[in-house]
This record gives sequence, C-alpha cells and structure tokens, in this order.
Amino acid sequence: MQLPCYNKLKRKRGQMNKIYDVAIVGSGPAGLAAAIYTARERHSTLVIEKGVVGGLMATIDKIDNYPGFLGVSGGELTEKFWNQAEKFGAELKNAEVLRCCKKDNVVKITTDSGEISTKTLVIATGNSYRKINIAGAERVHYCATCDGPFYKDKNLAVIGGGNSAVQEAMFLAEFAKHINLVVRSKLTASQILLDELKRYKGKIDVRLGAEPAEVVIEKNQVVGLKLVGGEVLPADGVFVFVGSIPSSDRLDGSRTKLDERGYVLTDTDLMTNVPGIFAAGDIRSGNVKQIAVAVGEGATAARSVRRYLESLNF
Amino acid sequence: MQLPCYNKLKRKRGQMNKIYDVAIVGSGPAGLAAAIYTARERHSTLVIEKGVVGGLMATIDKIDNYPGFLGVSGGELTEKFWNQAEKFGAELKNAEVLRCCKKDNVVKITTDSGEISTKTLVIATGNSYRKINIAGAERVHYCATCDGPFYKDKNLAVIGGGNSAVQEAMFLAEFAKHINLVVRSKLTASQILLDELKRYKGKIDVRLGAEPAEVVIEKNQVVGLKLVGGEVLPADGVFVFVGSIPSSDRLDGSRTKLDERGYVLTDTDLMTNVPGIFAAGDIRSGNVKQIAVAVGEGATAARSVRRYLESLNF
Repeated sequence: MQLPCYNKLKRKRGQMNKIYDVAIVGSGPAGLAAAIYTARERHSTLVIEKGVVGGLMATIDKIDNYPGFLGVSGGELTEKFWNQAEKFGAELKNAEVLRCCKKDNVVKITTDSGEISTKTLVIATGNSYRKINIAGAERVHYCATCDGPFYKDKNLAVIGGGNSAVQEAMFLAEFAKHINLVVRSKLTASQILLDELKRYKGKIDVRLGAEPAEVVIEKNQVVGLKLVGGEVLPADGVFVFVGSIPSSDRLDGSRTKLDERGYVLTDTDLMTNVPGIFAAGDIRSGNVKQIAVAVGEGATAARSVRRYLESLNF
Repeated sequence: MQLPCYNKLKRKRGQMNKIYDVAIVGSGPAGLAAAIYTARERHSTLVIEKGVVGGLMATIDKIDNYPGFLGVSGGELTEKFWNQAEKFGAELKNAEVLRCCKKDNVVKITTDSGEISTKTLVIATGNSYRKINIAGAERVHYCATCDGPFYKDKNLAVIGGGNSAVQEAMFLAEFAKHINLVVRSKLTASQILLDELKRYKGKIDVRLGAEPAEVVIEKNQVVGLKLVGGEVLPADGVFVFVGSIPSSDRLDGSRTKLDERGYVLTDTDLMTNVPGIFAAGDIRSGNVKQIAVAVGEGATAARSVRRYLESLNF
C-alpha cells in the first residue's frame, strides 16, 4: 500500500519545517563527497546517517587504493571527509529513515526522530555484504580488489559459487599461490566464467559440496578453513562472495526505479527516474564499489543537484 | 590518410618490445588513479606524459574539494598520487604520443622517443581551457566550481557569452556581491539559460560588445578588468569561460569515436568503441571535470581493464 506523502494531521498549526536544498541519506564516501561539494557551494546540506558515520568505509583496517592515501584506516579517512564537509557547513542528523516521498517539488523524509523537507535528495545508502555465520567469520574479507594484494604468494580459501565468487577467485589467482574455491552445493556462475575457470587448473581447486564450518585461527593468524566433516583447507586468508544486499529498503516511497537486484537506477548524471532525487555510490546500479568511485559519483551527483536547484529557481 | 599500424621496416630483426598490460596516456588524476589500481593489481603499467606529471591538477594553487584534503596544492596532491602509483610498480615515460593504432589485440603507440606496445590503453589526456591573451591573464580563473567559493561577497568579472559563461556566472552569483558578464559581441547561450539569466538582474550585469584589454593588478591584488576603450570594471577576481580544448589530437589513429566537440565517447564501463581502449577524466565526453570525478573514472577504467585482460587470457 502506498501511504499518503505525509500526514497533515500530525503537523501542528504554524509549525514550519526548514526546507533543505539537499538531504543526503548515508554518510559513506559517496554521501560525504556529495556533502563536501553541495555545502561548499552554499546549498544547505543535511546528511542523515542511521549508524556509524563513514558506512562500510569506517570499518576498513587499511586502505591502499584511494588516491592520495597509502595505508590509511577507514576511520581516519572518514574523519577527514566529514571534517571537510562540516567545515563548509554540512549538518549531520543521526536518524533512521522510515519513509520518503516527493510532492510539489519537495521531498519529505520521515525518520525515527522527526520529519525532514528537502528540495533534492541524494540516495547514498550503500550496500552490505551478505555475511557468513561461522566461528572466526570476523576475520574474512569481502572485497578482492581491496584486500587481494595483501596476499601475494599465499594460500587462500574463497567461499561462494556464483559469478562474483568465480570472477574474484580468478582475480585473486593473480596474487595467491593457491586457492580452494569452496562451493556449498554446485557452481552457479555463467558458462563463460566456468570455461575461463578451467584455465586455472592447479591454481584454483574447486571443492563442490563443501560447507565451511570455521575459520581456523592460530596465534591470531588465519591458518585454514575447516569444513563440516572436519577437513581443514590450508588458508592464510579467507574471502567470501555470497552476494551483497542494497541498503535502500526504506526509500521505497520515493518511487525511484530499482534494478532486479534492488539497486537504484540512474542516468549518466546520476538522477533517478524521479526529478530531484539522485543516487551515488554502492547503492547505484552498476557502481564499481570502490571508495574512489563512490567519491567521484558523490561529486557528480552534487553537480546534478546544483543544476536541478538552478532550474527550480527559474 | 590512415597510415599503416606500424612500420615493419623500422623494426630490426630480433628486436622484441615488451608488451605492457596497460598504457595510460596522461598523468592527471584520472591517469594516476588508473595507474594506482592497475599497478596494484599486478598489471604491468606504463604512464606516458608529454609535459608535467599531474596535468592541469599540478598547476592548481589550492584545492578544497577533493575529499580527504583541505587546502592542498595541486603539486602536493600530484606527488602523493604518483608516489602511490610508483610504489605499486607503475612506470613513467616522458614522451609525446605521435600516433596510436590497434592490431591483433595489441595497441601500438608511436612516441617521439620510441614505440610502445600494450594490451590495453587508457586515454586520460584531459583538456585545456581556451585561454585569453591579455595583460594579467595569468591571474584569471577557468573553473567556477573550484575557485568560486573563494570570492564570497566580492565583485567579479566573467568573460564569455556562451552556455558555460552564462551558467557559471549564475553559479558564481551564489557567492559574489556583483558580477559583470563581459561579452565581446553578443550572447550565444541557449534561450533557456538567457531566460534564467534575467532573474539575476542587478546581480549580474551583461556588458555586450565589451572587449577585455587588461586584468588590472594593484599591490599584487586583482582590482579590475580594463576594457578596450579604457573603462575599468571593478573586479576582485576574473573568470574566463571561452571554451575548452580536448587534448586527444594525437590519438586519432586509435579510431576511437569522438563527440562533436572532440571528446572521447565511452560506454558506462568507460570503454571506447575500440575493445581494449578506454577513456577516463576530462577527455571523456560527459565528464564533470573535477579531480574527484577523474579519480573515480580512473578506478572504473582500471576495473574494466582488468575484466578485458581476463577475457584476453581466456
């Protein structure tokens, strides 16, 4: 059921909300880059974050591939991004978005701590990796591009049997000495990837019907992946590719179009099908899921926000 | 005339060139971001630069809007980017590209100091602003997004009469106290922009038939723009928007498709119409012309390079 855009009964007489130029939902690299740009360009800017500022970025131990920083922690980078946005006047609201809709050129955002009105909305909610729930899971990696280069000439276990698991296993084979590809039931990757995988015989061993039971840790080092049944595969690192989940669930009311996996569709200016609503970063359909790319998309979305606001003035 | 891909007669018997995985032409933020990614992913990477490493970025005094850095110089940022790429093994060649073509899955690049062979090519040659040639021109700005926020409540002169001049003058009006829009003959911007411009009456004055003669500098401060005829418009800063020039002239032989203005067309993965040849940054048609965006596109192109190289192995 589509709820009405906002409940007039809840609004007391004479109560006027500020209307922001830009609200940004999500404070990862895409959201904060957008905020740096829009705030610096004197658009009143509100960043809404339900959890920790920085999103997935804030949880990363070591980042080597965001240009300008070698070996920085995600926490440190987040702090720099947010300080920069704040310096230009961006505001932060810690709240969870419950509902969102657009009416008469204003987007109404209902959160668990009040309602926000804004002329434009940037959806930068990101995504989360589908996790595995086994002992030692806090030590596994979910991004090969990010963490693969740390495993030169090491043994790896890669968990998953779909397109991304096969693709990333082949990528990791550039670094690793040997890889066990651990597949719970059977490979579901596309035929072209499976044909390609055959070239990695000896380098990547496929273990069908193998169910992970535990990441084996000795002296604080990952040393293996134990399977149900007891076998331990030697592994200096474990990568998991069992899918990702878009974090856009509460923005349904915006009527933005999503792809078949739930990621937000945009045009090349990063505008969704709803004028004034934009998407940037990992939540955007087709995004590369790298901090550098999220930052670029945040800046691009900000440029589009500016153009849209100029057209509203007209 | 299309020259043959490379001259076999020039190649001595037994002379074997190394074939790089990736050659990147241009060492601005797009090129260096791509190099950081491809080198880190163990693809042999060569960056070719005919001038100064860093491109336009290296010439910027102060950058406030690349996330992570507040008030950094372009030179310092360039150094950080290049050191990062070099650390992962990227090589640099100072040379001018004379010709470029693809044959049998290898791109041949002829430079003024030898020939280079590569499996993939990233065109990251950027663009240059069309300059004005008057006294004091070394003090003018060519990017409103970059430098506009430094002119809060100041007087500005904006030179140009096309779409970008009108669009950027209205953007600068968000910061400036007053703007003279100096148009040599008549306004050539689109009607919708001209209608929008009318709303800025009093804030933006259009000076038709006004030809700039000199940026007036007193005590090392810009104080005005002198016109042919002698009138001096008060101005704390001068912005020039008289067009930009893509720097892709010597890559014609690659047969990549260009838009009507000479910028390189790509798909959303940043591949051109020629498989294995990619474009990123300011040279790409539709690019936003910001360091953050160039960096994002460099990372995206690197991902596409990786996918393409994987498909070659197959």
